[in-house]
Amino acid sequence: MYDKIELAHGSGGRKTQQLIKTLFQNKFNSPILDQMLDAAILEINESRLAFTTDSFVVTPLFFPGGDIGKLAVYGTVNDLAVSGAIPLYMSAGILLEEGFLLKELQQIVNSMAEAAQSVNVQIVTGDTKVVEKGAADKLYINTSAIGVVPKHIHLHPDGIRPGDAIIISGQIGEHGLAIKARRQEFIMDTPLQSDSMSLVPLTQAILEAPDKVRCMRDATRGGIATTLNELAEQSGLTFLIEEEQIPVSPVVHGACQILGLDPLYLANEGKFIAITAPEYAKAAVTTLQGLASGKNARIIGKVINDFPGAVVIKTILGAQRILPMLDGDPLPRIC
Amino acid sequence: MYDKIELAHGSGGRKTQQLIKTLFQNKFNSPILDQMLDAAILEINESRLAFTTDSFVVTPLFFPGGDIGKLAVYGTVNDLAVSGAIPLYMSAGILLEEGFLLKELQQIVNSMAEAAQSVNVQIVTGDTKVVEKGAADKLYINTSAIGVVPKHIHLHPDGIRPGDAIIISGQIGEHGLAIKARRQEFIMDTPLQSDSMSLVPLTQAILEAPDKVRCMRDATRGGIATTLNELAEQSGLTFLIEEEQIPVSPVVHGACQILGLDPLYLANEGKFIAITAPEYAKAAVTTLQGLASGKNARIIGKVINDFPGAVVIKTILGAQRILPMLDGDPLPRIC
Repeated sequence: MYDKIELAHGSGGRKTQQLIKTLFQNKFNSPILDQMLDAAILEINESRLAFTTDSFVVTPLFFPGGDIGKLAVYGTVNDLAVSGAIPLYMSAGILLEEGFLLKELQQIVNSMAEAAQSVNVQIVTGDTKVVEKGAADKLYINTSAIGVVPKHIHLHPDGIRPGDAIIISGQIGEHGLAIKARRQEFIMDTPLQSDSMSLVPLTQAILEAPDKVRCMRDATRGGIATTLNELAEQSGLTFLIEEEQIPVSPVVHGACQILGLDPLYLANEGKFIAITAPEYAKAAVTTLQGLASGKNARIIGKVINDFPGAVVIKTILGAQRILPMLDGDPLPRIC
Repeated sequence: MYDKIELAHGSGGRKTQQLIKTLFQNKFNSPILDQMLDAAILEINESRLAFTTDSFVVTPLFFPGGDIGKLAVYGTVNDLAVSGAIPLYMSAGILLEEGFLLKELQQIVNSMAEAAQSVNVQIVTGDTKVVEKGAADKLYINTSAIGVVPKHIHLHPDGIRPGDAIIISGQIGEHGLAIKARRQEFIMDTPLQSDSMSLVPLTQAILEAPDKVRCMRDATRGGIATTLNELAEQSGLTFLIEEEQIPVSPVVHGACQILGLDPLYLANEGKFIAITAPEYAKAAVTTLQGLASGKNARIIGKVINDFPGAVVIKTILGAQRILPMLDGDPLPRIC
């Protein structure tokens, strides 16, 4: 037990889950929150809406492949996208440290505007707070967003069945590693770039067969290992992953070896896991591969029911081991 | 001009307005954001929804009459309430400093849960981030919320007409002064309490005559002076206020004199300005006074059209002067 908040409580891994379950879910007492989906699904009048929130505290604010502004828009949009929603409206809560450079704020707001426009999302409401020098680290952003979920779309881990296919939409580990490399001034021949982007085109593409897609989830903090564990736990089934099927770029592979990092635990900002009916898996991958941002999509495993709630990985050497959720926080403030 | 963010940019007054206009509105390019209402009004399918966001950075976290958790729920609920909406769903983005006491977090989450329950709002989605010690001051909260606006309700400063009455729902200055007193360990015989509370019962009560209420706005950061200026500017009319009609408790009056503060610029967390048709003004005040939290409601002035966009105050001594919007930030981190 602990009596103080630790960095690991913000990792998105085991300790975050515990804090959410024992404190927030317990007190807020909401059946919708208890679903623990990427976005809350709300029934208002005749509409089904998806509603989600995310705070962004990434450091540094600017990194190869993006900045906190781009991340704040796409990160929240992606929570709607994997819920099967069409994102429509967003809020922006900007928290600034006194003395922050206006020029940098302008750059970040530009990025937010560009990202929002690229996905047809309107930033319709906002809030600006400024705290004294030393009471924040430059700038933090909260974005919340609303989207519409078409009536025929019902994505939920409850729908996952043994035999279902596990798909990843592309190569993993790029965001986490780009941030890590930037912080450590780690120089490589091929520069590492964050994969921050909108998942809407990809999620909408595979939802053309809506009854064959059980559930999707973007693999951000905690990496795909954590996302797979969340889905395995929530479905009460076993996720069997083939390590050699997991797409990792040579750059990420090399950097991970040098830095001693496991790409399965590195944050992504433009990748998602989809669980589909077995008969739809190949078509889904082909559909994803037909889009530039999905060209490395792959089936990485299947759902079985040997060890309820666990993720089992078959390593490249043929061994099988349990792949746990992220514990601790190797890279704080990754998003 | 300035090249760095100043505390005044977060005051809710003149500098906040400038930053919003020149940067956020300019870049985000949203006709809905440009309305500059307390909540964005969204048309989704057949529904009219109100959507709003607020970040809370108040210090200290606990103060007489409430804490940051209570403030974070009611503050955001009130932005929906004054938009004529029935609040339904809320998100909670919690930003924690490493080392923050779990016990205090529990207390704050309890307050949020109690406040949300008291207004039938469900906290349905959330996010938790932790930053290193020194990268935040204990805890910040962002809440965003969605409500439904009944079809027959259309509140907008555009609807304000010369002759309309200006109503305040109760005594002013309590929140700002309670925080100030708490910070300075200013001891008084009668303790000052924040007025943090939900405005839903009051706003819903006067909306029983929906076509007679032009517009409402809660008078938070920047006090009623700033809120009145916003409405005068947006309507292009003049707000003539009678100083002697403004309800100020003897405790606030006395403390303001000792501390040299003007209650018109002190933050409130449970008061709103309503602009109504002249013939409805007395009935609206009677309705408000019929509820415990509205017992000090009063007509404080009327709309004229002498000086477009200005607020003119007739002082107790009979002089008339322009009442400007808050400039600078006398009390940073008031909410």
